[in-house]
Amino acid sequence: MDVYAIKMNSFTLHERVAADTHAVCDLALCRVLLMNDKRFPWLVLVPMRPDLREIIDLPPGDRAVLMEEIARTSSALNDLFAPDKLNVAALGNKVPQLHVHVIARKKTDAAWPNPVWGPGTAEPYDKAETGALLDKLGIQFGLKGN
Amino acid sequence: MDVYAIKMNSFTLHERVAADTHAVCDLALCRVLLMNDKRFPWLVLVPMRPDLREIIDLPPGDRAVLMEEIARTSSALNDLFAPDKLNVAALGNKVPQLHVHVIARKKTDAAWPNPVWGPGTAEPYDKAETGALLDKLGIQFGLKGN
Repeated sequence: MDVYAIKMNSFTLHERVAADTHAVCDLALCRVLLMNDKRFPWLVLVPMRPDLREIIDLPPGDRAVLMEEIARTSSALNDLFAPDKLNVAALGNKVPQLHVHVIARKKTDAAWPNPVWGPGTAEPYDKAETGALLDKLGIQFGLKGN
Repeated sequence: MDVYAIKMNSFTLHERVAADTHAVCDLALCRVLLMNDKRFPWLVLVPMRPDLREIIDLPPGDRAVLMEEIARTSSALNDLFAPDKLNVAALGNKVPQLHVHVIARKKTDAAWPNPVWGPGTAEPYDKAETGALLDKLGIQFGLKGN
């Protein structure tokens, strides 16, 4: 664990990502975050490595881990929300720190069939909703007994 | 090669993707396509397997290959276009066949800093532009001597 701590030492979550999200858990590579927007069940994966901008800034081994963490996150959203479609995207035009969106889309949601990054404004969860959702996500990611 | 041919047998490119793109090459897993929209250097990867909708419909081994083909495509766009940012996304809200967008973004492009799926209309390449770009991409993907 000491080696892990040293490797993580210089990772700092970008302040805008931190402001827009709640922390769910840390996987082997990525921090899992819940976007604070109840219009969409929306998680964000941020690889806990310094100075990453693009997926190809990760070495191949880490890219493989990222893909499996995307899959794990996708499955968690599938199990909890039974979406009509998953949207997976690494854009980063506005926030320079590498982050991957994994979003559960419904045909009835506020943006369907368009991407979520467009018109409209985030609708924050209240405190009770946040707590309940973080509990459910924690169970999905195996942090708590299920 | 016969086994490969049998495995690919039931893959058919979705008609809307076929209509919007030019074929660049086939990698081990994905067909590489050039989006016919000169506003953005924009490639699309379509895994050549039948009945895929989500990344998690692929088995883990194919997911790892997909990630490396995304990386290879990203590097090709980097080398050719020196973008300010790469955008990588599997959305599929409108076209149900699994496909991954890999797009070279410039701060001066028609949509920056927004995603490319929004206002505005595709601007097709003319025949000479298409041929020249497919040649360059072919070299990047190692299809022709470089």
